[in-house]
Amino acid sequence: MGLTLPPRRSVGSYVPGVQTGDLLFVSGGGPMKPDGTFVTGKVGGDVTLEDGQYAARLCALYNLASAQEALGDLDRIRRVVKLLGFVNSAPGFVQQHVVMNGASDLLIELLGENGRHARSAVGMAELPMNIAVEVEMVVEVA
Amino acid sequence: MGLTLPPRRSVGSYVPGVQTGDLLFVSGGGPMKPDGTFVTGKVGGDVTLEDGQYAARLCALYNLASAQEALGDLDRIRRVVKLLGFVNSAPGFVQQHVVMNGASDLLIELLGENGRHARSAVGMAELPMNIAVEVEMVVEVA
Amino acid sequence: MGLTLPPRRSVGSYVPGVQTGDLLFVSGGGPMKPDGTFVTGKVGGDVTLEDGQYAARLCALYNLASAQEALGDLDRIRRVVKLLGFVNSAPGFVQQHVVMNGASDLLIELLGENGRHARSAVGMAELPMNIAVEVEMVVEVA
Repeated sequence: MGLTLPPRRSVGSYVPGVQTGDLLFVSGGGPMKPDGTFVTGKVGGDVTLEDGQYAARLCALYNLASAQEALGDLDRIRRVVKLLGFVNSAPGFVQQHVVMNGASDLLIELLGENGRHARSAVGMAELPMNIAVEVEMVVEVA
Repeated sequence: MGLTLPPRRSVGSYVPGVQTGDLLFVSGGGPMKPDGTFVTGKVGGDVTLEDGQYAARLCALYNLASAQEALGDLDRIRRVVKLLGFVNSAPGFVQQHVVMNGASDLLIELLGENGRHARSAVGMAELPMNIAVEVEMVVEVA
Repeated sequence: MGLTLPPRRSVGSYVPGVQTGDLLFVSGGGPMKPDGTFVTGKVGGDVTLEDGQYAARLCALYNLASAQEALGDLDRIRRVVKLLGFVNSAPGFVQQHVVMNGASDLLIELLGENGRHARSAVGMAELPMNIAVEVEMVVEVA
């Protein structure tokens, strides 16, 4: 894929992804913007639903960047298996599944039917560095 | 299994489950009651421990309905591998593991030793549509 | 490994870990201290960052004890694939990733390059029995 991916940063004590058999487990990724900063804040509070969806989309891109770092080539992805989406949630915000459509729809845009996946979406009290969304991914690889 | 499962609803940008090799990753399922509505609220607050356990049981049934939709036939399940249980928790409620026994015990009732699984149970700030519990499942399939 | 692991307690309706193919899915483990009690409280509140890291380290040891119970022998672990770290978080605490380094660094100390893993770290509203950290693990086994 001719895709512009966010720069990844050294993660120190863990790695972007680990392949075992035909599966690649990708580390939780955050919503890094093109300028290298993250979308931060609580969705339903200081972050709107629409910005939350944008953040989820950025997380999926971050996951793909991690997959590329682990695999060498994104074309080795056979299909996306599963997403787990953690949405930093203001009290009373209950549309985590709508937020996560930002990630899911991007993967289907990019990978077609191979981008379609199982998914969970949940609402968090806090996330690292106050990022608005964190997503982890499992993909099947060739 | 001659099991009455909840009706599943279209999930749009994701699918009920994805099989990869011998594993089926099942999407997060909610506590859908026989009338098609969900058990909502925070366990330890407006939802009692007992109702939370009932909700967890309904989530496991929802997961099985998702597995059936993905596999065509529940008899293809060789064993349940893992549950991750997200309990919508009132402040100070710390019996998420007891809530999740509602899901675990149901699977053992239905599948015997093949229903026994690894498990995590955690307490959430919020969940989609304010559902009381969400459970995701990994199963081994034939 | 000549490792002193925490005593595991009967978990009733679920098991310490389930092997499927070359993967072992390990149940969520808590920060059990050598005296058999757990580190409890919210990190960033009544639990300091340093104590949170210690708790994460204890969770990784608990996971290894679970793996040993499931596998019979820790030497069957080929590599750690993935950690998911749940940090019981005081409002405004956003260093869940720093807390989880306690678990990650221990695994690398014990297993070298085979201990290096994919990882997610998230902040929870509540955890079972008010434990400070819960970690679940996927490992590849021989």
